[in-house]
Amino acid sequence: MIDIFDDTYFMKKALIEAEEAYRLGEIPVGAIVVSENQVIGRGYNLTEQLIDVTAHAEIQAITAASNFLGAKFLTNCTLYVTLEPCQMCAGALYWSRVSRVVFAAEDIKRGYRAMGAKLHPKTQITTGVLEGEASNLLKSFFAEKRR
Amino acid sequence: MIDIFDDTYFMKKALIEAEEAYRLGEIPVGAIVVSENQVIGRGYNLTEQLIDVTAHAEIQAITAASNFLGAKFLTNCTLYVTLEPCQMCAGALYWSRVSRVVFAAEDIKRGYRAMGAKLHPKTQITTGVLEGEASNLLKSFFAEKRR
Repeated sequence: MIDIFDDTYFMKKALIEAEEAYRLGEIPVGAIVVSENQVIGRGYNLTEQLIDVTAHAEIQAITAASNFLGAKFLTNCTLYVTLEPCQMCAGALYWSRVSRVVFAAEDIKRGYRAMGAKLHPKTQITTGVLEGEASNLLKSFFAEKRR
Repeated sequence: MIDIFDDTYFMKKALIEAEEAYRLGEIPVGAIVVSENQVIGRGYNLTEQLIDVTAHAEIQAITAASNFLGAKFLTNCTLYVTLEPCQMCAGALYWSRVSRVVFAAEDIKRGYRAMGAKLHPKTQITTGVLEGEASNLLKSFFAEKRR
């Protein structure tokens, strides 16, 4: 059976969030939280606009999803994010008990894995979904910044 | 020369924040950010009230301090917190480039050190300031919860 609502479908939604960040001059990272094929939280990097290092896409998406659910824990939810979470966001995801994290591009310098941080042992992890699209968006952002 | 504004003085201010969390039924952790002996940000754990796992004391204090400064980075600032930061908060402190972190009680299970996360290599760390007071507050909170 063909599943329209697959990881690619939802990662595209996260990429749309990342493009919004790009338009605002923010490092283009976007995230969504999905529960039963429904987007229940979204967010994109707003660290410059909000003058706040904590305003990463994942943090906004987690807060939005908890607000939607009226519940602190995101069990039975999947978070899609266009870049590998940093330590802070991995820590937030750890506390959220999210069932699954799917990310697109790797962050080999500041990603949670390189930094030694951990997702919750019960959280499933899928990597590399639309990796090329997400990393091209980041590359063109930084190329434009340098110009 | 006697310095009134020492680490004990400021940790007491963080403990006052923690007591506020206690009163609200939150795990009692408090934090403040200090710049040139002035408190420029404060916060206490609000995860239950806000239904948001990201609402730790440090995150609120960092956001408040950046808001006060109109700047993302907390260089030349010290964050005082009554409990060792978790991965999420260590990650936020990493991004904030805070000059110094002072914490009271250790968190041997979920503290950033046990979890493998890292503060910024340029951030100085002081531990154990009013450790007994902070950990007694936590202990009496959990004892009361169990009752």
